[in-house]
Amino acid sequence: MRIRTKDIAQKAGVSLGTVDRVLHNRDGVSEKSRKKVLAIMEELGYEPNRYASALASNRTLSFACLIPGHSEGEYWESVEEGIRGAVKDFADLGAHCAFFYYDSFDYSSFAVEGEKILGGDFDAVIIGPTVKEFTLPFTSSLDGKGTPYVFVDSFVSGSSPLAYYGQDAHSSGYFTGSIVLPLRVPFGGTIAVFETTRGKVTGSNQQILREEGFRRWIGKNGAEVILRKVDLPQDGDPSACRKVLKEFFSSNPDIKTGLFFNSRAYIVGEFILEEGVKDFDLTGYDLLPRNVGCLRKGAISRLISQRPLEQGYGAVKALTENIILKKDVKKENLMPIDLLTADNIDFYIR
Amino acid sequence: MRIRTKDIAQKAGVSLGTVDRVLHNRDGVSEKSRKKVLAIMEELGYEPNRYASALASNRTLSFACLIPGHSEGEYWESVEEGIRGAVKDFADLGAHCAFFYYDSFDYSSFAVEGEKILGGDFDAVIIGPTVKEFTLPFTSSLDGKGTPYVFVDSFVSGSSPLAYYGQDAHSSGYFTGSIVLPLRVPFGGTIAVFETTRGKVTGSNQQILREEGFRRWIGKNGAEVILRKVDLPQDGDPSACRKVLKEFFSSNPDIKTGLFFNSRAYIVGEFILEEGVKDFDLTGYDLLPRNVGCLRKGAISRLISQRPLEQGYGAVKALTENIILKKDVKKENLMPIDLLTADNIDFYIR
Repeated sequence: MRIRTKDIAQKAGVSLGTVDRVLHNRDGVSEKSRKKVLAIMEELGYEPNRYASALASNRTLSFACLIPGHSEGEYWESVEEGIRGAVKDFADLGAHCAFFYYDSFDYSSFAVEGEKILGGDFDAVIIGPTVKEFTLPFTSSLDGKGTPYVFVDSFVSGSSPLAYYGQDAHSSGYFTGSIVLPLRVPFGGTIAVFETTRGKVTGSNQQILREEGFRRWIGKNGAEVILRKVDLPQDGDPSACRKVLKEFFSSNPDIKTGLFFNSRAYIVGEFILEEGVKDFDLTGYDLLPRNVGCLRKGAISRLISQRPLEQGYGAVKALTENIILKKDVKKENLMPIDLLTADNIDFYIR
Repeated sequence: MRIRTKDIAQKAGVSLGTVDRVLHNRDGVSEKSRKKVLAIMEELGYEPNRYASALASNRTLSFACLIPGHSEGEYWESVEEGIRGAVKDFADLGAHCAFFYYDSFDYSSFAVEGEKILGGDFDAVIIGPTVKEFTLPFTSSLDGKGTPYVFVDSFVSGSSPLAYYGQDAHSSGYFTGSIVLPLRVPFGGTIAVFETTRGKVTGSNQQILREEGFRRWIGKNGAEVILRKVDLPQDGDPSACRKVLKEFFSSNPDIKTGLFFNSRAYIVGEFILEEGVKDFDLTGYDLLPRNVGCLRKGAISRLISQRPLEQGYGAVKALTENIILKKDVKKENLMPIDLLTADNIDFYIR
């Protein structure tokens, strides 16, 4: 049986209003009554109704979110969608969120946007971090102000977030090795690794860690594999990418396996579809609509997913539950490493 | 900006109490005031605070759950854990659940337990269905009483559940074919299909549908594969299983690939570990602790999972949101077909 506040009031011989005042730490209750009410709550095993407490406090929770800028259909759109979904679900408890975007290839833009957040009046911050040197000054300032924050996508050591949501990138690269290599090595020992770069900047730590994990599988299993890098221009015009790919595919008809350790496998997949490249096995990351389109058409063989929606949703939920409902939250939240193919994708797109 | 009831009261020139009475359909408001309050709510785009409404109604939601009986560490334990978790999460909104168990190999036990539920006073029912002939009379009686119900695990056509949570078993078998066969056919064209039966009853539709899906992949891809059935006694003593397996492995050293289309792959996996069987590739279903143990030790190569926790949790959430919070809920909820191996299992066990 659920214990209600009126049961407590009755048993303590006080009014319902008195019980409410004790629960919400309001004035107007004698110390004697307060102790009696608390004793009876404990005796009955009463769990304070946290939703009611939150509503009684009638406060609004104001979030800021600092993530890389993104176009429609890009990876960070799903993270943002998860955040917006959670804000909507928790709006009854009073939550809203302001978004700030930085350029993931220009680290200083992270600092610029961070300053705006520090100058504002936010209860909590959700961060998709950049490199350590630019992330830590921002999180230190938040620590100084006592503002809680949560990381999504990647963790930055030396900081103290309330929680972290993301994938273990190294493990996801290792897993990719365990799936792709036993299947593909019989088709030839050279594998293409496609990359997007701007100048010397790759724009994401995840990409580097995934490749390291992949190489670890090779080392551990003594696989005889050569990785052949293919650099594609980030933000370059599509024709620059086409030129690189045309050159690569025409000069290397023997290479039948490719990997893309970030979310842009569709660049290669769409080229494969347009040019009618045959029997090329391509593995990519993340359920971007363009990636999923290639997967369904057979131009991408598999995608590894890291549940960006769940990351964004979880970040807001953790902050709300901690701040408003006073719940303890789990600090490290590593996302499953989901394997998607044309044959199970329908059940992941909901 | 979030609209609060006090903004509405102010704008309508009525007391906060009057707004509350309108929101919760209580007496004591003149028709004129009621119309005015509703008009202003619409004008301001007010979304009624559903948590507050639920709390104000102060009702307790009483669930019954009818699922197969299970021992510790079996598949249905996770479904039940999901249900209990959701009931706990929603306890603030007033939910509790009574569990009724039937014997999945004895269909009439479903009817017996169903009668107990029909004789009780429950607001909603969660059902892990048995065969159609025994499920439909029960759901018809629930329809007659106007009691909403949700299916978990499998759907029974001809019924009208509020929602259904489960995996498309046929697709999951097809997906299994697409993963296992390209990898394993080079190791020999005969594949063992292990089954548990009691008399002529398999105990689950899912098992039959998964095998059908697997065969569909073979047919569609023209794979030259022979499936060799190996019947293991359900509830038979472990030594009876051992005897069958010993006979199978010693007579068929050339068969190097095996499948188990229900959650009991650990029976074969543990035999492999005990007997030191080498190079046998075994695929099973569901993250039972004993299956996961075999996966980590290399005696099971991969497991397909269908998120039983999420199914149970979703069922309670859908019913609570529909009945107490008056939300619309999604009817068909097909679970992702997750592929787990020793290299990503850590991120699914949370």
